[in-house]
Amino acid sequence: MKNTKVSDRLLTVPASPIRKLVPFAVEAKKKGIKVYHLNIGDPDIKTPEVMINVLKKWTTNPIAYGQSQGQPKFLESLASYYNKLRYSFVKTNHIQVTTGGSEAISMALFSVCAKGEEVIAFEPYYANYNSYAAINGVKIVPVLTKGETGFHLPSRVEIEKKISKKTKAILICNPSNPTGTVYTKDEMEMLVSISVENNLFLISDEVYREFVYDGKKYFSILEFMKKYPDKMILLDSLSKRYSLCGARLGMIVSLNRDLTDGVLRMAQGRLSSGFVDQAMAEKLTEVKDSYFASVHKEYQTRRDVLYKGLKSIKGVYLEKPEGAFYTIVKLPVKDSEDFCQWLLTDFRYKNETVMVAPAAGFYGTKGRGKDEVRIAYVLNINDLKKAIEILRRALVEYNG
Amino acid sequence: MKNTKVSDRLLTVPASPIRKLVPFAVEAKKKGIKVYHLNIGDPDIKTPEVMINVLKKWTTNPIAYGQSQGQPKFLESLASYYNKLRYSFVKTNHIQVTTGGSEAISMALFSVCAKGEEVIAFEPYYANYNSYAAINGVKIVPVLTKGETGFHLPSRVEIEKKISKKTKAILICNPSNPTGTVYTKDEMEMLVSISVENNLFLISDEVYREFVYDGKKYFSILEFMKKYPDKMILLDSLSKRYSLCGARLGMIVSLNRDLTDGVLRMAQGRLSSGFVDQAMAEKLTEVKDSYFASVHKEYQTRRDVLYKGLKSIKGVYLEKPEGAFYTIVKLPVKDSEDFCQWLLTDFRYKNETVMVAPAAGFYGTKGRGKDEVRIAYVLNINDLKKAIEILRRALVEYNG
Repeated sequence: MKNTKVSDRLLTVPASPIRKLVPFAVEAKKKGIKVYHLNIGDPDIKTPEVMINVLKKWTTNPIAYGQSQGQPKFLESLASYYNKLRYSFVKTNHIQVTTGGSEAISMALFSVCAKGEEVIAFEPYYANYNSYAAINGVKIVPVLTKGETGFHLPSRVEIEKKISKKTKAILICNPSNPTGTVYTKDEMEMLVSISVENNLFLISDEVYREFVYDGKKYFSILEFMKKYPDKMILLDSLSKRYSLCGARLGMIVSLNRDLTDGVLRMAQGRLSSGFVDQAMAEKLTEVKDSYFASVHKEYQTRRDVLYKGLKSIKGVYLEKPEGAFYTIVKLPVKDSEDFCQWLLTDFRYKNETVMVAPAAGFYGTKGRGKDEVRIAYVLNINDLKKAIEILRRALVEYNG
Repeated sequence: MKNTKVSDRLLTVPASPIRKLVPFAVEAKKKGIKVYHLNIGDPDIKTPEVMINVLKKWTTNPIAYGQSQGQPKFLESLASYYNKLRYSFVKTNHIQVTTGGSEAISMALFSVCAKGEEVIAFEPYYANYNSYAAINGVKIVPVLTKGETGFHLPSRVEIEKKISKKTKAILICNPSNPTGTVYTKDEMEMLVSISVENNLFLISDEVYREFVYDGKKYFSILEFMKKYPDKMILLDSLSKRYSLCGARLGMIVSLNRDLTDGVLRMAQGRLSSGFVDQAMAEKLTEVKDSYFASVHKEYQTRRDVLYKGLKSIKGVYLEKPEGAFYTIVKLPVKDSEDFCQWLLTDFRYKNETVMVAPAAGFYGTKGRGKDEVRIAYVLNINDLKKAIEILRRALVEYNG
């Protein structure tokens, strides 16, 4: 009897660089080791009480399917959020609720490309773009950005070099996970111009919109959506904004009717997003500005602590991140995956260690990022300081 | 400036036959019309209180990501559920939690087929198989089953005729949505034998496992999984079993390690399923047997009321459904989609109407099912009787 084999394409789906070392962390914890998690953007910030209270006061029974586009009240809340940002043209019929920003990415890649077609992205980029590219048969064509320039964009010529007949879109994450880069007005205008002249979609993942530091001005793709309604696609999520990672709610916003009609048909296939999660999230209009102000202040302080701490470690290189809560850091190691695993399996300082994500999985080009890690500064200042100290000592021991 | 176009494959994703008429229902309701929903399997049965109480007593904050495979306690609950069904070989590492049974279907199709490869399914089949086939570039090759034989399987020869070099799997839904058919031991053994001899996966969607009537014996794919560990794939969901449709929790169960490793990598790409939903669902071990006993009794009674009621309408044909809570019914109309839409836009009886799903979307062969509808008997006896009376009067008026 022959063994029945899974498809080759399943074998091409990469393991997440953020999660694949989790089994080693689990083992370390079993031995009583405390692990500081800087590997994943899972904030310790509290979810707004007004959302948690929806659970506490729950009366609806049964927990039934919702509408495929999203629950009407939740859609209203989302529209009012965008309207409050001064994008008054955004109506509920431009919004598709997705099961996490993850589903938004997947649906967008499927929607803009046939199998084998290409999307340009700036490496290092969010690692799961590689997963969704594999799942949707899309090729991500990487354009390199460098730590020395804060991972800002290269010249227009460098970008346009990578455009082929198969290119259908440019995909950005702004503010960027994993680099913390916030694109300038000039950069955004250049991307829009490239998109328009080459007839490409411009897809902007703006999950970290509120996380921009030092008073920098932020330029959303929404600034250009009314002028180029067929080309601009916004991907978004509530996970980070309201510390709702486990609620799995994101969205696609677009004025391209073929696109929103198509993603709605895709959404009908999976019936609906979570009913309880949407009931919680529709309260977003009741979250006070003071919530964001304190979250913003906390992250900017964490960023400062992290930057100062890492800069003081010999052989470590990074530029100051401008937004989001990540940074790509060059370490004095040859193989950061080996180092990250060693941190979990071998190293301890006062019975504690730290988990960070090897950066190679955030690149599209093989061999790049091998001496880099991504660090998520999602822990409180005290823990963050301890984690940096652990990293300092670990590097000495690893290289000793 | 050229208009930027979505991919052709997005245009091939079909609208859901269960949901595409919803806008007409919404319009009817705006006019004050009561609509009895027999179009969608969204039960009015209560979710177990022990699950709802998890919400009421909620204290965890923030709502953080869970593990990609599923939350450890939820996985333990699921394993104990299968163990209680006498499948003691099922361990947590054989289970991948999915965001609804929908994601389980999608991941399974991606996992077993390359683009353009084929899966055999027995039409009429669950309509969303067509959505997920389009999204994953898989071709569903339909084998016809007929109302006159209660939609039971045709001969082995008829099935094997459809196997080509591109065939990778046979996909069944047992008990069947949309037909209510429960496959016999002989049928299951035939399918397993075809799978083994032709080196195919056998994928069984058993979302309605508990809904089998008249004391019929039920044969799960789990009966054969230990003997053929590489070939048998179980798709499952909590939506119907615990009236948790809005919680979006399903699973894939398999002993094929390449498969479970691969779907875990896919799952890492989308991070995790809902945190709150899994916390509710892990209480499934505390749901009393009396809950199922009363739900089962209720559905069998509804089935009887529906069957008797529909049989008494002139020109209507159906066989008695054996399980699940659906039936495919032949109506004295030429174009059931037109009739279903007319029910919502034109017909009223005492200011009420009924919504049912046109059956054509449940077929893979174009032109089939045009005089059929799928009816979900998910309403209480009283409403069900009213809905049947409305349908009787509507058919007279439509054909008058």
